Amino acid sequence: MQQPDYEALQEKTSEELKTLLDEHRMRELKARMEDMNEFDVAEFLTELDDKRMAMVFRLLSKETAAEVFANFDTPEQEMIINSITDSELAGIVEELYVDDAVDMMEELPANVVKRVMRTATPETRSLINQYLRYPENSAGSIMTAEFVDLKKYMSVKESFARIRRIGEDKETIYICFVTSAHRKLEGIVTVKDLLLADPDTEVGELMDRNVIFASTTEDQESVAEKFSDYDLMALPVVDKEGRLVGIVTVDDILDVMEQETTEDIEKMAGILPSDVPYSRTRPLEIWRNRIPWLMFLMLSATFTSMILTSFEDMLAVVPGLVAFIPMLMGTGGNSGAQSATAVIRSLSLGDIEPRDALRVVWKEWRVAILCGLTLSVVNFGKMLLLDHLILGNPSVTLAVAATVSIAIVFIVMFAKLVGSLLPIGAERIGLDPAVMANPLISTLTDAVSLLIYIYIAKLILHI
Amino acid sequence: MQQPDYEALQEKTSEELKTLLDEHRMRELKARMEDMNEFDVAEFLTELDDKRMAMVFRLLSKETAAEVFANFDTPEQEMIINSITDSELAGIVEELYVDDAVDMMEELPANVVKRVMRTATPETRSLINQYLRYPENSAGSIMTAEFVDLKKYMSVKESFARIRRIGEDKETIYICFVTSAHRKLEGIVTVKDLLLADPDTEVGELMDRNVIFASTTEDQESVAEKFSDYDLMALPVVDKEGRLVGIVTVDDILDVMEQETTEDIEKMAGILPSDVPYSRTRPLEIWRNRIPWLMFLMLSATFTSMILTSFEDMLAVVPGLVAFIPMLMGTGGNSGAQSATAVIRSLSLGDIEPRDALRVVWKEWRVAILCGLTLSVVNFGKMLLLDHLILGNPSVTLAVAATVSIAIVFIVMFAKLVGSLLPIGAERIGLDPAVMANPLISTLTDAVSLLIYIYIAKLILHI
Repeated sequence: MQQPDYEALQEKTSEELKTLLDEHRMRELKARMEDMNEFDVAEFLTELDDKRMAMVFRLLSKETAAEVFANFDTPEQEMIINSITDSELAGIVEELYVDDAVDMMEELPANVVKRVMRTATPETRSLINQYLRYPENSAGSIMTAEFVDLKKYMSVKESFARIRRIGEDKETIYICFVTSAHRKLEGIVTVKDLLLADPDTEVGELMDRNVIFASTTEDQESVAEKFSDYDLMALPVVDKEGRLVGIVTVDDILDVMEQETTEDIEKMAGILPSDVPYSRTRPLEIWRNRIPWLMFLMLSATFTSMILTSFEDMLAVVPGLVAFIPMLMGTGGNSGAQSATAVIRSLSLGDIEPRDALRVVWKEWRVAILCGLTLSVVNFGKMLLLDHLILGNPSVTLAVAATVSIAIVFIVMFAKLVGSLLPIGAERIGLDPAVMANPLISTLTDAVSLLIYIYIAKLILHI
Repeated sequence: MQQPDYEALQEKTSEELKTLLDEHRMRELKARMEDMNEFDVAEFLTELDDKRMAMVFRLLSKETAAEVFANFDTPEQEMIINSITDSELAGIVEELYVDDAVDMMEELPANVVKRVMRTATPETRSLINQYLRYPENSAGSIMTAEFVDLKKYMSVKESFARIRRIGEDKETIYICFVTSAHRKLEGIVTVKDLLLADPDTEVGELMDRNVIFASTTEDQESVAEKFSDYDLMALPVVDKEGRLVGIVTVDDILDVMEQETTEDIEKMAGILPSDVPYSRTRPLEIWRNRIPWLMFLMLSATFTSMILTSFEDMLAVVPGLVAFIPMLMGTGGNSGAQSATAVIRSLSLGDIEPRDALRVVWKEWRVAILCGLTLSVVNFGKMLLLDHLILGNPSVTLAVAATVSIAIVFIVMFAKLVGSLLPIGAERIGLDPAVMANPLISTLTDAVSLLIYIYIAKLILHI
């Protein structure tokens, strides 16, 4: 028997839906879609052409339509908004969770946003506006207002009655938030606690007063760290006065983690981070994100050129020396990039902190000696065996092989120290360590590797 | 009024606990710790010296001790195991969730594992053994057996009775799994559905039959993708026969995502990935993870050396040409790394797929022309103004500046095409695209950049 496979099932479903659509069996199509997961419905619709997509979308019930809509990317959202009536749009906006609506507003073009805001009820409009005012990527900007709040003096029975009454539209009902008369957060109580307790117990006795919370202006990266440290399902967000204003749920945190990691990876490759996925970024925008670092690094290489120019005559005295410059620079760049990457990732995971600088340097120092010596010995053998004996290159003498091999040791040591120290230093003075990564470090090591090589050549070859 | 800050509160608590410990007020210390979040207790204990840590740990109740224990890193777990009695150890092992116990077993040294297994009950022992047999990083290896199962014919009332009876020890009670008499997964029902339904409704009527599931051998990366696509709290895992054998919960997925991203980032920097955090890896192991790629790339640079050697005489004819080789190679490497990084990340997020290869190449082609031309024009101006006029370098003639600037355009175009195509090609033939990243691409572009430069020099300078 074959291993069950969810993807294969989904593909089969998608084929069946297309057949229903081709044969205009709309009632059956609607029934099937209402039963499916909203993400899969969104995937199915995205594969259709615009006209059929809008047509099929309008078959959905208001609730399903809103859920499917929240799963669309911006271009599909825009297309749908442009092809439905104001009252249909209003229905969807009211059904959306505030955080999904705010996400959408931040991406859509201004004229579409205007139309959405016009169709929304005044309450929704003011709520969306309030959320749009929180700084980008703050806890306030990713939180939602749909949570269950309870009071200390409620009994378990009363709490369940309240959950049943208001729970339908909440993002999570499993964590309930206990607030004072002034909306201050006093504790949390889970549905599990409530289920396992006697129906007459008061919430005040059950609740956990030791609540982990975030403040509205807190960075989303720090919020994500709390979810991962404390294994949370939902995190309350409080304002300056300690009043509960919203909650962040774990499903949003998965997206935050992906987004933050993508930004780090982009910075490490010398790309300015952008919120838009690669597939939807136009060449001109990609150019704008990539050219600043390319330009800066190209111009920084002027130093390396100047060094080479001033030692050109000296290098020309011993033929063969120039041929190994790219290899030395490459080895320096790769060694530095390895250290920088390891340190940047450890800093971002909280595995090491700036105060560990000495311990890190001591560790990288030992790694550098091990790596430098290994590479040096192998290179010495390779130059004598391959370049000198087999390829018969007359300029690769014992002295040249020694010069290159000794330079490797010092270059690797310099690269690994700089590669580990620059990110830690950046973090210490409050800069993002990720920008101290590979491209910057290789440009720096390029120049220094060259100097190291030239001085060792002077010492050994007496030139 | 100051913004409330959870971190500051925690630090204050930690200070207070230390005072209690110094003053030997153990009863108060225990009471405070039992009230705290287990992650914070683990953090507090980790800061103490080994002796005091073991002493304070033994104050905790069995349940709290197990939860705190699960939050320790491996060295602390080992230390604790070595300082408690067999019966204390047995108590903790029985309280741990299976997935936490399995995680621990995979990390601990063999002799410690033996002692843990000896103290466990036969049931726990056989469960742990069964889990240890699933492939590393598969759904089976990260799932847990502690879930609530219901039957179709149960009423809402009976379901709540069952949840109350068995729910105490389950990782989640909010998603319940409906299974047949042969343990086949038939549907899921949430506590929300149950709470909002009439007490006499049967589970069969409420349950959602369209269940998203994973198979035991499925890779954890694909499991994480399902959580992020479908906003799940828990995912059922079925065996070959479609029987429900465990569930994965969202808190474990946060760890999986961090681990998978770290591996990708390491691979992209030419480091062999390891499961152990940087701070706990010894220099010799770091060396083992870093030396293979450094060695391979150093030896690959032999081609670049050979090219330089064979054109050495030609390059020497026009002084000044050699000085710009590092800049050209650096620009090629950085351009290629940008493209490779963008494509690798997009592939890993599912934003693009191998079948998008043509679209990606067409996009990178246009970006390359934009970047290449910009860099070329700026470099031409810089060489004439800075190198020629201001620095008065006589070897930087109009022809040399033109040679270097034209070479930039072709080098950037080559680098961006290779940088985007290699990762997509790797994915298509089933290799991990992350290894096709920066180091490999820069070594390749180094050699080709040099060839491009030399041929353009031949054309323009007639040498």
